Amino acid sequence: MKPFMDEDFLLSNETSARLYHNYAKSMPILDYHCHLNPREIAKDRHFENITRLWLEGDHYKWRLLRANGIDEEYITGDADDKEKFLKWAETLEKAIGNPLYHWSHLELKRYFGYDGILSSKTASYVWDFCNEILKEPDMSARSLIKNSNVSLICTTDDPIDSLKWHEELNADSNFDVTVLPTWRPDRAFQITNPAYGDYLLSLGESSHLKITSFQTLCLALKRRMGFFQEMGCRISDHSFSYIAYHPCTADDVEAIFLKILDERPITEEEILQFQTALLNFLGRQYHKLGWAMQLHYGVKRNNHEKQLKRLGPDTGFDSIGVTAPLNELADFLNVLALTNELPKTVIYSLNPNDNAAIDTIIGCFQDESAIGKIQHGSAWWFNDHYEGMREHLTSLASNGLLGNFIGMLTDSRSFVSYTRHEYFRRILCDLVGTWVEKGQYPDDHEILSKMITDICYHNALKYFRFSV
Amino acid sequence: MKPFMDEDFLLSNETSARLYHNYAKSMPILDYHCHLNPREIAKDRHFENITRLWLEGDHYKWRLLRANGIDEEYITGDADDKEKFLKWAETLEKAIGNPLYHWSHLELKRYFGYDGILSSKTASYVWDFCNEILKEPDMSARSLIKNSNVSLICTTDDPIDSLKWHEELNADSNFDVTVLPTWRPDRAFQITNPAYGDYLLSLGESSHLKITSFQTLCLALKRRMGFFQEMGCRISDHSFSYIAYHPCTADDVEAIFLKILDERPITEEEILQFQTALLNFLGRQYHKLGWAMQLHYGVKRNNHEKQLKRLGPDTGFDSIGVTAPLNELADFLNVLALTNELPKTVIYSLNPNDNAAIDTIIGCFQDESAIGKIQHGSAWWFNDHYEGMREHLTSLASNGLLGNFIGMLTDSRSFVSYTRHEYFRRILCDLVGTWVEKGQYPDDHEILSKMITDICYHNALKYFRFSV
Amino acid sequence: MKPFMDEDFLLSNETSARLYHNYAKSMPILDYHCHLNPREIAKDRHFENITRLWLEGDHYKWRLLRANGIDEEYITGDADDKEKFLKWAETLEKAIGNPLYHWSHLELKRYFGYDGILSSKTASYVWDFCNEILKEPDMSARSLIKNSNVSLICTTDDPIDSLKWHEELNADSNFDVTVLPTWRPDRAFQITNPAYGDYLLSLGESSHLKITSFQTLCLALKRRMGFFQEMGCRISDHSFSYIAYHPCTADDVEAIFLKILDERPITEEEILQFQTALLNFLGRQYHKLGWAMQLHYGVKRNNHEKQLKRLGPDTGFDSIGVTAPLNELADFLNVLALTNELPKTVIYSLNPNDNAAIDTIIGCFQDESAIGKIQHGSAWWFNDHYEGMREHLTSLASNGLLGNFIGMLTDSRSFVSYTRHEYFRRILCDLVGTWVEKGQYPDDHEILSKMITDICYHNALKYFRFSV
Repeated sequence: MKPFMDEDFLLSNETSARLYHNYAKSMPILDYHCHLNPREIAKDRHFENITRLWLEGDHYKWRLLRANGIDEEYITGDADDKEKFLKWAETLEKAIGNPLYHWSHLELKRYFGYDGILSSKTASYVWDFCNEILKEPDMSARSLIKNSNVSLICTTDDPIDSLKWHEELNADSNFDVTVLPTWRPDRAFQITNPAYGDYLLSLGESSHLKITSFQTLCLALKRRMGFFQEMGCRISDHSFSYIAYHPCTADDVEAIFLKILDERPITEEEILQFQTALLNFLGRQYHKLGWAMQLHYGVKRNNHEKQLKRLGPDTGFDSIGVTAPLNELADFLNVLALTNELPKTVIYSLNPNDNAAIDTIIGCFQDESAIGKIQHGSAWWFNDHYEGMREHLTSLASNGLLGNFIGMLTDSRSFVSYTRHEYFRRILCDLVGTWVEKGQYPDDHEILSKMITDICYHNALKYFRFSV
Repeated sequence: MKPFMDEDFLLSNETSARLYHNYAKSMPILDYHCHLNPREIAKDRHFENITRLWLEGDHYKWRLLRANGIDEEYITGDADDKEKFLKWAETLEKAIGNPLYHWSHLELKRYFGYDGILSSKTASYVWDFCNEILKEPDMSARSLIKNSNVSLICTTDDPIDSLKWHEELNADSNFDVTVLPTWRPDRAFQITNPAYGDYLLSLGESSHLKITSFQTLCLALKRRMGFFQEMGCRISDHSFSYIAYHPCTADDVEAIFLKILDERPITEEEILQFQTALLNFLGRQYHKLGWAMQLHYGVKRNNHEKQLKRLGPDTGFDSIGVTAPLNELADFLNVLALTNELPKTVIYSLNPNDNAAIDTIIGCFQDESAIGKIQHGSAWWFNDHYEGMREHLTSLASNGLLGNFIGMLTDSRSFVSYTRHEYFRRILCDLVGTWVEKGQYPDDHEILSKMITDICYHNALKYFRFSV
Repeated sequence: MKPFMDEDFLLSNETSARLYHNYAKSMPILDYHCHLNPREIAKDRHFENITRLWLEGDHYKWRLLRANGIDEEYITGDADDKEKFLKWAETLEKAIGNPLYHWSHLELKRYFGYDGILSSKTASYVWDFCNEILKEPDMSARSLIKNSNVSLICTTDDPIDSLKWHEELNADSNFDVTVLPTWRPDRAFQITNPAYGDYLLSLGESSHLKITSFQTLCLALKRRMGFFQEMGCRISDHSFSYIAYHPCTADDVEAIFLKILDERPITEEEILQFQTALLNFLGRQYHKLGWAMQLHYGVKRNNHEKQLKRLGPDTGFDSIGVTAPLNELADFLNVLALTNELPKTVIYSLNPNDNAAIDTIIGCFQDESAIGKIQHGSAWWFNDHYEGMREHLTSLASNGLLGNFIGMLTDSRSFVSYTRHEYFRRILCDLVGTWVEKGQYPDDHEILSKMITDICYHNALKYFRFSV
């Protein structure tokens, strides 16, 4: 029996272990997609106790607590921090096979130097142990990032964001990790949101324009993209229930936009036409700027209305949703490719059943303008677990070139989730190493080391054209 | 090479074997979902020969026989019982990788003490051997149940059922296995069935009501629920092609119901509105009564009309069907949760592609009113095989708390399919044991033994509030 | 560590190796579905160099080249053959986990006797080495076929094809491999194709009829089927985006057909009605003739319009597409079964998510008219890889009788892709052998050897009623 989470954790043979320890482990982390708060980096936040660090904003953990019948009081409520932590320990014990079991223990090991188990029995000890460590100066936001060997971070930012924390961080000579913004214009798409009018006002202000038409909306966004570009942005990001392709004429979209401005009712079809038109415009801009376009889809959000009212969005009540099969994704990519304006694109679906279809669609739009131009992004959110990552990688390899994959991202709000890269790298090395051990790929040291380090770091660096 | 089906069958390492032999094996069976005929238990049925026991009503086996090109004469027809058995043996030989291969041999081993192989060569011998054993007194329905270490059985019953066999069984001091009814009101939903009017008459009679409106239908059902409750019922069960959420007003549903009573045509939309309204009513009642609501969906029934006319329903002509993606399931759960009336719910899909989505949906509706309140039921029907069960458990673990799973059910019409629990337990122990062996979960004796016995027995006992 | 691709490639234990080496390996190949050009067989084509053999028409390889950012010049363009080969070698290096990595090396080994690795480093050497071998006389089309132990080939042919190359081949006493046509009437379904009118003219000519109605279309096709039957055809093949069942009356379909003839617009619904009616007619004819009906569906073709214009169809721009869930497939099979006119049918989906549903649908239509009458065809196109084949076989076994499976086909335009049968057989033997090694099926020499040789060869021979 292998001890729990020893140095060869998830590495099932010598080749896998060699690939991980010799190549993957020491590669820096290029965190091209996360939800870290740049303010907390700028202010170099410290954490009072491990509940603040772990349980304050992590809806992954909240969901498991609820699945354990724990009262909301101990989850998002007013219970004492220690009590909350004890409930978490008690819950985690039952989470065999869940990535949170592994992530939590990796974090305890790497950031706190705690090599034991967190369970209901040890919870009190771990509480004290970790809180003691958290008092140390190198447990601040910036230190956690630096000690994680991170070379670059891309946060997630709205077009109207002033990016003042990014500015402050860039100017700060005490922190040498590049922190770039990512362009995430979701709110510009949310035309049925009652706050949409207010958003247009803010967007207009920030771009010194009055938004009175679809065309001025596009112009405003273009100006803001210029600003983001100056601030080092290289990536955009979108979230949709599905990637629609419902084309309409320029006049039609202007007519739809007027309805929106006038707060007249619009149809489902018009919503999709608007989405198509705006994403079409943006995609072409990304192509001009050399930005990559990230497309996330397949979420059904806010399933539990009562909890939405009580706790707000992003509190653990989303699920995999299936709105339409992904034929329209191909049609949408096609219309950009028709005029040679398809940007580098990274596709993420929350539905793991889409793996194979995505891998065949990306294979239709590759071309000489970039290596691995269209990517199937790393297993996302509910799929970001041992089996999910293995299935994503295996499907990608079966239908494309694994060697060109841009690899892992963190997608987290936490300063200690860089261990997810370790998790991914172990899984990657185990997969590749096992293929080699089984005689399914040659044991060529040079080729394998390049492949592993490329996927862990270099591919993303080149793909997004970062300079670090 | 491991011998075929030895004591460590499906247990691939020491930890797995230890978990199974020390903990899982001896746990009683809580058969909270089956299709046993209570009359046959009450009458303590004996079986003339193994064809009667095995092939009389088992459409799983019939399908394989047909796939082997066997004439219907030897399946549901008038051929001699021995001939039928020989055809089955010949067919089974080809069923490598099929659960029936394993189930059949487990049954031969556990109930008949036959340790050999059933194949075309041994068929005649096995025929004689088993029929000799079947003459023994402890091969009756009740003895088979008792010798399987079953502590409780929930049958499947229509609201109009008198439950007289349950009554008889409860009164019978010679049989100490609890046999409870399960409330399965499918016929109350089948409004396009020509026999629906007759069903309403029977339901009205049994509840001393004249059903003239949706409201009186609900009242009739409520009265029958009261009776089922008195008879110990704790669980309801439903089968739908999909879980719809098509809300309409109380007036609308009354109008639809009047059309049904008048035998006027109704639209597909009205069928879904009726389904939504009735399930909505029932769900709230289940919540009041503390019953669990089982939702089965994803079957396309009676695909082969010619055979339906010849042999009737449930004779092996159903398949996995996909009517709609399961977004509406989340909407339906939400509407009950809005008013705090969502009962404990167990979701089963016949489509294995739904695993991940279900596991994320149940994660949205957990709360403090029960541990693991919303469950993803055990791999069902066409998925109830080695890979299907492993995938169900792995998906459940990856997105939730495996430790809270209520475990296996039998879902069978046969008195010898309790070995399916053995099959499940071996798979469960192998999965968990392998994780431990690979260093993916700590080898903590106390936690693991609790987890295994909980999933095998205690979780379901607590979840359904049975007293045994 | 196992050496790369040694004699036990993909065979993970002794039983698997024994099954492969003793039984599977030496079985002849019955290539009942391929896209070989009968003219090239008749002319006994020689290949100038390995680029001509490997890269001239293989869109699988083109896709990977594009995914590597290679300029189209080196793919379908005018670059020098050697340069193209070097680009391929460089690309292949990154294709770990891709079937092309294995297929390419198997081909180098079996046809060229090259046991080394193809990589950017060895590419130049391999270029010279292979081109030298290609000069040898036994590297012609016919020799490659004969040396691959092929006993029969079914090409893919349009109803209007004169089959003159088949005639020539049948008459040629120097070539003893049977080459039969397959009836593939896709163009008769493509009623929205601008060239449809011309096609009807050609079809009318070849059947000595003027096609002025749906009835005469059917008659024309029937006559051509008669001709194909005389030429030894035993199999039909169809490709659809999905298998529709939209019945309409005979008058309706005549009205639709008149619209087509008059080039008046038709609706989506009418397209599906026409498809249903024509396939319904053809299915019944196949039943009469004793032909098998192959149904392929789930492709989204020509996703990249710009490349379609530049390079034409079938150049690597297709993907998995999902038009509708497959409920209608069951309804379509049912309508043929109603009158006892359902032919032997082989179903292939490009969507691997359909595996389980297909396996349950075929189980509804099996009967005594053939052993394994309705088949789930071998993992197709984008699924024809290690994991895809294992998943197909495992799903088939879990829900049916693996022992009756008709096995592998080549589906290729290349004379060296017979190694795909080796690939399949190794995977099959490894799966079965592993089950035996793990004690999940008895180690019965006689039964296992029959099962393996049946699946590799005899099942298809009997199923299609070939005489070789």
